[in-house]
Amino acid sequence: MAKGLTKREENYSQWYNELVTKADLAENSSVRGCMVIKPYGYAIWEKMRDALDKMFKDTGHVNAYFPLFIPKSFFTKEASHVDGFAKECAVVTHYRLKTGSDGKSIVVDEDAKLEEELIVRPTSETIIWSTYKNWIQSYRDLPLLINQWANVVRWEMRTRLFLRTAEFLWQEGHTAHATKAEAIEEAKRMINIYSDFAQNWMALPVIMGEKSENERFAGALDTYTIEALMQDGKALQSGTSHFLGQNFAKAFDVKFATKEGKEEYVWATSWGVSTRLMGALIMAHSDDNGLVLPPKLAPIQVVIIPIHKTAEQLEAINQKADTLCKLLKDKGISVKYDNRDTQTPGWKFAEYELKGVPVRIAIGPRDIENNTFEIARRDTLEKKIISIDGADVLIESLLDEIQNNIYKKAIDFRAANTHTANTYEEFKTLVKNQVGFIKAHWDGTKVTEEIIKNETKATIRCIPFDAEIENGTCIYSGKPSNKRVLFAISY
Amino acid sequence: MAKGLTKREENYSQWYNELVTKADLAENSSVRGCMVIKPYGYAIWEKMRDALDKMFKDTGHVNAYFPLFIPKSFFTKEASHVDGFAKECAVVTHYRLKTGSDGKSIVVDEDAKLEEELIVRPTSETIIWSTYKNWIQSYRDLPLLINQWANVVRWEMRTRLFLRTAEFLWQEGHTAHATKAEAIEEAKRMINIYSDFAQNWMALPVIMGEKSENERFAGALDTYTIEALMQDGKALQSGTSHFLGQNFAKAFDVKFATKEGKEEYVWATSWGVSTRLMGALIMAHSDDNGLVLPPKLAPIQVVIIPIHKTAEQLEAINQKADTLCKLLKDKGISVKYDNRDTQTPGWKFAEYELKGVPVRIAIGPRDIENNTFEIARRDTLEKKIISIDGADVLIESLLDEIQNNIYKKAIDFRAANTHTANTYEEFKTLVKNQVGFIKAHWDGTKVTEEIIKNETKATIRCIPFDAEIENGTCIYSGKPSNKRVLFAISY
Repeated sequence: MAKGLTKREENYSQWYNELVTKADLAENSSVRGCMVIKPYGYAIWEKMRDALDKMFKDTGHVNAYFPLFIPKSFFTKEASHVDGFAKECAVVTHYRLKTGSDGKSIVVDEDAKLEEELIVRPTSETIIWSTYKNWIQSYRDLPLLINQWANVVRWEMRTRLFLRTAEFLWQEGHTAHATKAEAIEEAKRMINIYSDFAQNWMALPVIMGEKSENERFAGALDTYTIEALMQDGKALQSGTSHFLGQNFAKAFDVKFATKEGKEEYVWATSWGVSTRLMGALIMAHSDDNGLVLPPKLAPIQVVIIPIHKTAEQLEAINQKADTLCKLLKDKGISVKYDNRDTQTPGWKFAEYELKGVPVRIAIGPRDIENNTFEIARRDTLEKKIISIDGADVLIESLLDEIQNNIYKKAIDFRAANTHTANTYEEFKTLVKNQVGFIKAHWDGTKVTEEIIKNETKATIRCIPFDAEIENGTCIYSGKPSNKRVLFAISY
Repeated sequence: MAKGLTKREENYSQWYNELVTKADLAENSSVRGCMVIKPYGYAIWEKMRDALDKMFKDTGHVNAYFPLFIPKSFFTKEASHVDGFAKECAVVTHYRLKTGSDGKSIVVDEDAKLEEELIVRPTSETIIWSTYKNWIQSYRDLPLLINQWANVVRWEMRTRLFLRTAEFLWQEGHTAHATKAEAIEEAKRMINIYSDFAQNWMALPVIMGEKSENERFAGALDTYTIEALMQDGKALQSGTSHFLGQNFAKAFDVKFATKEGKEEYVWATSWGVSTRLMGALIMAHSDDNGLVLPPKLAPIQVVIIPIHKTAEQLEAINQKADTLCKLLKDKGISVKYDNRDTQTPGWKFAEYELKGVPVRIAIGPRDIENNTFEIARRDTLEKKIISIDGADVLIESLLDEIQNNIYKKAIDFRAANTHTANTYEEFKTLVKNQVGFIKAHWDGTKVTEEIIKNETKATIRCIPFDAEIENGTCIYSGKPSNKRVLFAISY
């Protein structure tokens, strides 16, 4: 129930935290920084996962599974990867517990200390490339297009449900190629798939582009990203795809014999999206009444609620509802008929509104007489009375309309919250007002990027692929620049 | 290629290990006891997972996700669970690494020691019941029917791919009920689902029954099991479902208000199957030429291989094959046309035989003239020439026939390898000859069970649900018994 849900305007961050727990999406667990993904939240994640999995398979990728643990020494093999990943990690040092001397407690068995510590994977490049060494000998073994759905752990100090948790679920693709051009093409293909998924399934507009050197993945030569804008004007990095060059192939000595019989290092990519997408989905569309879900990812697309006083009325409504359910299911629409007698219709209305069910149908005694029902859209909160005849066709197209409308609202919001800054003063004022994306010229140097970040907290989210070429000067240094990059305060 | 595959008769265990790696199912990783599940093996696991997941959802269960880590103290809360599970576990003691004093290596940061160690889940009863405490207040919150697909870790000393690995993938269902009867009904429902799945999807006959007290899950009042027979005469426990009574509810103080307003402890079940099923699938059906897969779980059900000398011939075969592929796909059959020119037809024949593809089609120049092709069944290795007209219908029913035949073969094998023993001498002779299942009378005591186990290595696999009631005497003690239980040497 929306009762007690803080308004976005009052405190956006609190609104988010409350919404995640009240809508039964996730909650904090007894383990610091680790979340429990509740059934309703997990059902949404399953839909996201299945849609992505199909897109990966349709582009020739296969799934596999690699170990949870990585020997500590593996992290030292790729120099830049060490600094980026081998720090805030869960470290396994022992493999046995025993009963304590009090006969009740259990303690770590010091005799069972591992010779080499194992790290719970924060990402799997190292363990996977150490495996690829045995899988790749010749050009015939390439390309290798593998994805893994897995849990990973990064010991974050400040955590928030879905957005930043110590353990999270994700997929990580790790591909191996014979040429540089093919690897770059793959990395771009995957960021395009993420963009398609965000826009067509999540109704989430994103800007695709390249990360600046500062923001690149540890070990990558190039990182591509999709960046989305949340309702509080902050950006959320929603997926990344990395061109890794030959860094991991060299670190793990993965060479292949070319058609011409030469020996060369393999070219690599990796790419991933995580349960963080759940955070993006929630924050991008929801309102002060609760969650707003795009129909394509809603576990329940239509809910039907009976409104009755007598048992006879309920019986008549049950019959109508059953007919309607069958018609909708035949169209592949997921529908729930909630005729529980333990809750009132009012409670149910609030509950399904909070949970973002796209279409709510209410059937009362008068509807039975008139062969009608009341239909309410979650996105606009509009209601109307319609005839049951042909309702399935109407609802099918209404779900499409809602999907499109949610996307359009997000596009409009982003347009209204994207600004250009031509001077550093303009830039600082925009940042101070938390306006969203800022397009500005930048001189391309690390130094300038860092000064701007330190002074304003805004970072370069990406150098958009579709940035127009135009002559300008860097807002900070005044040096020449040939395109605007995308700045924002980010999650 | 079957080349180099040890024969089952020579060394069954070596045959299994070689088959798993040569058929690209899995391999050992650089991390002791942890496996890499390769794409072909993972594709089979995905099919198993999807079929089970649908069966769980069809019976009202939903999925969720709980943390990978469990605080050490949680294991001490349920007394019998401690001994069973809190011993051989991966223990996380630190959460940070740092660069070593040599500036190159990385070392554990001793300043980042956890106050309480975290255990990588060996099973999730404790963390889940500590969560359920907040989810269950009233009878309205029950039943709670939740499943989780996850990785778990048990630090096994002697590991074998799929059968016993330190990390494995599984599903674990954890349900909460208002009454004892309902919980028992649920535990039985789930063992029945496992049995259905084993028989109808894996073509694996299983015997359902109850575990003796010795063999029960740590913390359960009753454990139900499905037991399958492998080709070497050993039994493989393939799935278990536990009636946990109120043990975990009491350990984590999970009470609910009944309809009558009383407060009572909740009743629990848990149930799981794991990647161990892959081991059962491989061992039950495969032969000296390689894997034999039941069509319902085969990632590739039909493979088509062209046999040609000239490019023109290949062109004509490609056309026929494309037509056939389309027809088969329209019937929902997964088909692969392998016209790679990097491998010979002979190599391909051996490869797909090794990988257990149920149906192999070869098309040569003469087939083009005659509008025919050669079809070979993996299960019987029979070949015949058939007409392309109507081939899709024929292949569809052939796949069913293969599924049934594989099951029948396994049933026949089990029947031939199930014996009754009326005396301890008979029993010992049977065990020595590794004959499979032995039905024998037992006096129902722990002591007898343990003596038999110590002297013969045979254990009570289960007390079959369908055991006939008959008067008899225990083979060891001579005390009265009213039904035979199922003994075997087991994996």
